[in-house]
Order: sequence, then C-alpha cells, then structure tokens
Amino acid sequence: MSNQPKVVAFQGERGAYSEAAAVSYFGRNINPLPCASFEAVFEAVVQGQARQGIIPIENSLAGSIHRNYDLLLRYNLTIVGEVQLRVAHQLMVLPGVAPANVQRIYSHPQALAQCERSITAHFPHAERVTTYDTAGSAKMLREQNITAGAAIAGQRAAEIYDMEILRRDFEDNPENYTRFLIIAPEPVAPRSEAKTSIVFSMRNAPGALFKSMAVFALRDIDLTKIESRPWQGKRWQYMFYLDFIGSQEQPHCRNALNNLQEITGFLRILGSYDREV
Amino acid sequence: MSNQPKVVAFQGERGAYSEAAAVSYFGRNINPLPCASFEAVFEAVVQGQARQGIIPIENSLAGSIHRNYDLLLRYNLTIVGEVQLRVAHQLMVLPGVAPANVQRIYSHPQALAQCERSITAHFPHAERVTTYDTAGSAKMLREQNITAGAAIAGQRAAEIYDMEILRRDFEDNPENYTRFLIIAPEPVAPRSEAKTSIVFSMRNAPGALFKSMAVFALRDIDLTKIESRPWQGKRWQYMFYLDFIGSQEQPHCRNALNNLQEITGFLRILGSYDREV
Repeated sequence: MSNQPKVVAFQGERGAYSEAAAVSYFGRNINPLPCASFEAVFEAVVQGQARQGIIPIENSLAGSIHRNYDLLLRYNLTIVGEVQLRVAHQLMVLPGVAPANVQRIYSHPQALAQCERSITAHFPHAERVTTYDTAGSAKMLREQNITAGAAIAGQRAAEIYDMEILRRDFEDNPENYTRFLIIAPEPVAPRSEAKTSIVFSMRNAPGALFKSMAVFALRDIDLTKIESRPWQGKRWQYMFYLDFIGSQEQPHCRNALNNLQEITGFLRILGSYDREV
Repeated sequence: MSNQPKVVAFQGERGAYSEAAAVSYFGRNINPLPCASFEAVFEAVVQGQARQGIIPIENSLAGSIHRNYDLLLRYNLTIVGEVQLRVAHQLMVLPGVAPANVQRIYSHPQALAQCERSITAHFPHAERVTTYDTAGSAKMLREQNITAGAAIAGQRAAEIYDMEILRRDFEDNPENYTRFLIIAPEPVAPRSEAKTSIVFSMRNAPGALFKSMAVFALRDIDLTKIESRPWQGKRWQYMFYLDFIGSQEQPHCRNALNNLQEITGFLRILGSYDREV
C-alpha cells in the first residue's frame, strides 16, 4: 500500500484551486479525491477513503471560512499542515479557439467578479455565464466541445482538461491568497517552527478577551491570528479563533493552554503543525 | 427635497438582501438605488446620487467581507449605523406554477449550496442553474416568463417581481445572519448605546496586540469584534478590525483611542453609531 499515491480529499471538481493547493503541499504524486462539499471532505477522511483532506480556511479578500471552522469542531480530526496559494485566474479555451470567437465567458460568479475589469477591457461584448465551480467551467467546455466560449479557472484545470490559456493572470487584483489546512485523523509532530490553532469561547465580561491574550503575552508567545465570532442569539457570547507560534508539546505553550483553560468556558486545540514560511 | 424619499445605494438587483436590510433599517419610504458593485455603492454616496449606502460587512457563515473594509479605508465616508438581517431563502415561482412543474431551480451558487439538502429532499430531479444574484434569478423568471423553474431569493424579491412562494425558509441552516453597515459622508451623533469601529495596523512584536487590548481593558471598554488580517507579503504585519462599545466623543473612549494612536503605526476611526440591540 505504501507505494500507492496518497489519497487526498478536496472540495470541487478535478483541477480546483484546492487540488492545486494539495499538489503544492504534497507534490504531484498524490491521488486527489474530489468531493461535492466540505462536509464530504471531512467524511472521506473519517471513513478512511482518504488519508488526509485539504480545506480552505481564509481568503485575503473574502475572509475566514466559518463553515470549515464549524466542521473542524464537529469532526474529530486534527490539523497537520497549512499551505497558502495565490488564486491566479487563467482565461482558457479549447485549443485553437481565437479570442474573436469568445462570445461567452463561463465561471463561478466570484471568479467572474474578480475578473470584471479584465473581461470588460478585453472582451467587451462577451456574455458572462455563471457556473458552480471554476474548474467545472473548464470541464464543461471540454465535455460539450464549446468553441464559442472561454472559462476562467486555475492553471491546473487547464492542464487536466487540456485547455489553451488565452490570457494569463486575468484577475483584476493579484493580492488574492487562500490559506488551506491539511486535516488528518492523527496529529503529527512539527519538525520546524510550529503553529497551533485553537478555538475557545468566553462570556464577554469586560476585559475577558484581554485576560485570554494575557496568558500568551506573559509567556512571549506570538499570535498570528485572532478573530471573534458572535454566537447568534447569544448577546455577549463569542467564539474566538486563535493561532499562535509554537507547538502544544512545548512547555511554555502547554502552560499557556492550561492557563487559558482556567478562564474559558470551552477550549478546543485544533492541531499543531509546521508553519509555512 | 425633504419630502422626497431618501435615496439609499445598495449592491445587487432590486429585491436583494441588501435592499431588504435597508428597508429594515430605514423603513419602507426609501428610494433604493441598485448598484452593480460595492465600489459603485461608495461612488454613489461620494458623488451625491445617494444620501447613504448600505454594505454587508460580515456573515455568520461566510465571515467578514474584507473587500468592504478595503473600500471603507479607500473612501472618505463614515459608518452611521448597523443592521442585522437573517438570510431566509424563499423558493418562488410565477403565480400558479405547481411544484411538479419545477424542472430547474435558479439562484446564486452560494444560495443553491445553502439549500442543497432542501432541494434534494423536495425536488430530487430538479436541475440547478446558477445565476449572478439571488434577486436577479427571480427577475429573470418574471422577465422571461419561465414557468418550468423556481428561483431562490429573499421575501422582498418575491414582492417586487410578484412571485408566489412555494416553500418558505428553504435554507438548510437557519443560523445565517448578515450584518450590514450604513455609510454616509458626514458622521452622526449616536442617540443610544454607541458602537465604534476602527482599523489599525501593528508590527507584531511579541505582545503588540496585547498592548492594544490593554488600552481598552484599562478603561473597562467592551470589545464586540476583533479580527486580525495578515498583510500579504509582509510577514508579521497585520491589520486589525476592532469594534467597541462607546462613542469616540465619550472621554474614556477618546482617551483609549489617543492611547492606541501612541502605539500603532496606522489608525483609522470608521465611525461611531447606534448599536443595534
């Protein structure tokens, strides 16, 4: 079995940005398992169809993906790695299709919106056609042999569906990054500078958040992410997402977590993993 | 002029959730101005076509809308109010269309995804058709007289396009809330419990965030939101989004802001406004 490529579950069609992130993290010798939903990614790992899963957790333009934090709390999996990917949109066609033939541009509405100015500048008369998925729009052009259209998707979708890239890096704003997490049933021991992700809740008596920051500041532990999320219908109740530098196995981090446990209502350690540099 | 309904700019088609939020905040006697993009909402207010604008800033499932924080920093407008709306998706058809006739279901992919289980349960054979906009899908059914399909959009879209609601509250997860901000050229004086939104940046020397929390904790000022956002390409540089209870005109808040200014590289007060209770 160990010679078989590792199965990695991701959400989307073959060629999706999540698959590109998996290849960037694991290398090309993986067996990517496309899943219809984020929940299906977690299920595939829990049930053993995949060794690991990859999920987007925050995007530089769109923010944190709370849905995946919810699933991290619901499933008993652990974070074992992280990888950041620049979301570079490529405008692609079936090989040989000329720009003048592009009457329709197919993609997910978010990708179409992120390329709005480029479309208007280069294809002022093209009709926008919305699809479920960026990679899925390339797949559709290939399967239905659509020669009067172009798709907006990632480089990897162009490779998988054998499309020709007509315009590279077609997005209006290149500062579009997504951070992905690798999830697995068992924790790993970080080998380089480690990062730990936790979720906790507090009732916001004045200064409660300040106290929780103090347990890290007192031990010179750096935070790389802090985010509050209100609990709907519960005024003054918050969940906090926090990432810090260090592994839960290191004594000063262990002490900080024990200290935090004393003052929070709920605390869950989502995992310690190598920090991407 | 004062008898004319106030013009309020929002992003989306007539009947969008942003328009529903505007009606919830201002009442029915407004003149809603649909805009093609968030940027166009800001422009409409800056150029005086609209008195105020309304923008979504965070969603309970999808997180903060960083794009609108970016625009708040770019434009010289101020926040004058907030309103929270439950995103309740309605499945609607042209009047008289029976459930058995629904062969296609039209909506924005996010809305289709949020109703996935309901669609599968009630319309197992329906094809999903993605559109740009939830309200836009209702508009399309009306304009093209599509009787073999249903649209997923908000109650207000049903009213505007005279659609019949076939299934109410069709979403899988009712805990879907969006918080909207009202933006205007001039600040207002809050009349009840106030909230203030700020953005600041810090270089993350260990404990830097802790120090910035201290300026509020020392004055017993409650925080209702804190979120870090990494600056791409600048390791250890962060923007922070913070909301606290109180108005910038109150002395203890003014002192906290002056104190924060001493220790941050960049600080912008986005506005003080009545807190929605």
